[in-house]
Amino acid sequence: MDSIIFQEDKLRKFTETVFKTIGCSDEHSVLAADVLLASDLRGVDSHGVARLSGYVRLYEKGRINPKPNITIAHETATTATVDGDSGLGLVVAPFAMKLAIEKAEKYGSGWVSVRNSNHFGIAGYHAIEAVRKNMIGFAMTNASPLVAPTFTTERLLGTNPMCYAFPAGKYEPVVVDMATAAAANGKLEIAQRAGKPIPEGWVQTKTGESTTDAHALKSGGSLLTLGSDREHGSHKGFGLSATVDILSAVLSGANYGPWVPPFVAFLDPLPNSPGKGIGHFLGAMRVDGFRPVEEFKADMDNWIERFKSAKPINPDQPVIIPGEPEVEAEKDRKVNGIPLVEPVVKDLDDLASNLGIKLLSDF
Amino acid sequence: MDSIIFQEDKLRKFTETVFKTIGCSDEHSVLAADVLLASDLRGVDSHGVARLSGYVRLYEKGRINPKPNITIAHETATTATVDGDSGLGLVVAPFAMKLAIEKAEKYGSGWVSVRNSNHFGIAGYHAIEAVRKNMIGFAMTNASPLVAPTFTTERLLGTNPMCYAFPAGKYEPVVVDMATAAAANGKLEIAQRAGKPIPEGWVQTKTGESTTDAHALKSGGSLLTLGSDREHGSHKGFGLSATVDILSAVLSGANYGPWVPPFVAFLDPLPNSPGKGIGHFLGAMRVDGFRPVEEFKADMDNWIERFKSAKPINPDQPVIIPGEPEVEAEKDRKVNGIPLVEPVVKDLDDLASNLGIKLLSDF
Repeated sequence: MDSIIFQEDKLRKFTETVFKTIGCSDEHSVLAADVLLASDLRGVDSHGVARLSGYVRLYEKGRINPKPNITIAHETATTATVDGDSGLGLVVAPFAMKLAIEKAEKYGSGWVSVRNSNHFGIAGYHAIEAVRKNMIGFAMTNASPLVAPTFTTERLLGTNPMCYAFPAGKYEPVVVDMATAAAANGKLEIAQRAGKPIPEGWVQTKTGESTTDAHALKSGGSLLTLGSDREHGSHKGFGLSATVDILSAVLSGANYGPWVPPFVAFLDPLPNSPGKGIGHFLGAMRVDGFRPVEEFKADMDNWIERFKSAKPINPDQPVIIPGEPEVEAEKDRKVNGIPLVEPVVKDLDDLASNLGIKLLSDF
Repeated sequence: MDSIIFQEDKLRKFTETVFKTIGCSDEHSVLAADVLLASDLRGVDSHGVARLSGYVRLYEKGRINPKPNITIAHETATTATVDGDSGLGLVVAPFAMKLAIEKAEKYGSGWVSVRNSNHFGIAGYHAIEAVRKNMIGFAMTNASPLVAPTFTTERLLGTNPMCYAFPAGKYEPVVVDMATAAAANGKLEIAQRAGKPIPEGWVQTKTGESTTDAHALKSGGSLLTLGSDREHGSHKGFGLSATVDILSAVLSGANYGPWVPPFVAFLDPLPNSPGKGIGHFLGAMRVDGFRPVEEFKADMDNWIERFKSAKPINPDQPVIIPGEPEVEAEKDRKVNGIPLVEPVVKDLDDLASNLGIKLLSDF
């Protein structure tokens, strides 16, 4: 599929303008745009500006509050529950991570569960905030129900990502940022556009059979958890996804399981929802709460070097350290720009027209 | 394979006697036996008394110190590093979890990374200690290198389990306790004894090809990470296993990656090891640091009911809530006894003879 390349700065200004236009404060617009642009820069195209019109449609449905009064609903020295007041997850999660970092600065660690929020972009953005302070960062969120636990055909879980981020010394941070499904929805969309089948083990039909049909979700199918089937550990993927759901939502009083409000505005949330909005979980631990930072970083560098130099199966494909591809993408895209596929450019142009702002190409 | 059934009490007394005989204190012997018996009771046969002779062989090699002086090497209000002084992980990890719980009682959460330890039994035992205090429990450990990260043939990781445990109300706690490999070594042993092939996706040969040979590890093969291959998310299993390794060992100053000392006494640790012993990571967070315990438990019960009642693919196989099979096994085995396969009984009889204590059947 053809792509058009845009410089970061142009995309950033456009995105800020969109958020300002729907009523977000200048500060929130800049922050929300920063989270989305981080995704596009890091090569996670599914979570960047490609979702911008989705956020706006949720605003138009009254499901995103552009001027949230984000509050701390409950706290101890090192724990808190934050209520996002239906704000953009792109600003609610940074508020929560800042609180976790402040608690960690005082007491060694800080943990914040969040309710009444919306989609928070890439988990890595938030966890890396802790890494900048020589802390280990944790970020999780629940998400629209698309994934069926082992042994059922019902979509009860989101792709519920987990992220763990660790500072290193002379190398880039190690950032594990992963959906707990076998494959995220974005990979299906790529296969759909290309008209290609998907591998077995990503998706099941509405009766629970494995399928290679990239469109199976549209006819009642569901994504499978990491592990794909029971024999290969799908119950482990279910357990991880359940962990994200509980820490993010049962702990905060957000919606969980099938009651998580869908990201797509054309689907209404289920009735009788048990909580408020979607939930996140953010955490930070000071490295020097355990050992001197320089010792930890020296061992992280040694860890990275040992894994990086492991004997490859194929000499052309060395071991990839978690977070490495995203750093490579960012280095490239900072210089060479961010490619957007044509349907995304058209979607952003339509969005600009609807909002009465300049087209992206005119920024 | 034939099994002999033993009552819990008999196995417990035998196990305590073994630990006392190698010089452990009465208190440590009772505790270590409790951790091993919890595994046998919960149906995790691979981590219970079947490993008892393995611990004794490590003691005989001078790699387990029966009288450890377990110390807090470094701490803040909510974080600590514990040095296990080469003790049994079965007593070092409970020391660390007790410390995490004490910190959580005061400050909302507590996090302890452990170095200079040995195999700690099942992760679930330790995490459930927190659940008894209305806390959320976390337990991880690194382990003997048997698992190859994506794209390499080298065994650089253990089966590195993660455990997350959550209290519920009228239902049993939700306990996610899982190896981050596609299948644990115990499953290979079952196939070996039965003379059967294993599924594709559990193991690769020494040249990195998938194999169904249950004996492939003996000829230089390696276990695969959760996800099995890149297309099905093996890089996610690698990321999770790396997270366990870093939190348990890089953070505490234990050995990591290929330098983790093997559990089997006939294999020596690698030279030039960067740390001390193996590492664990234990954590506890007070539920009421986030919201009232009764509200959390009511939502946990609702979560469990919703998932449990999900439409099954096969009407005979309902969704399994994480931790449920272990609770069922414990109920059964508390009453009906613990079945041990004959090779394990023989191994325990040989152990008794070598140590000059009564045979298991005479306890």
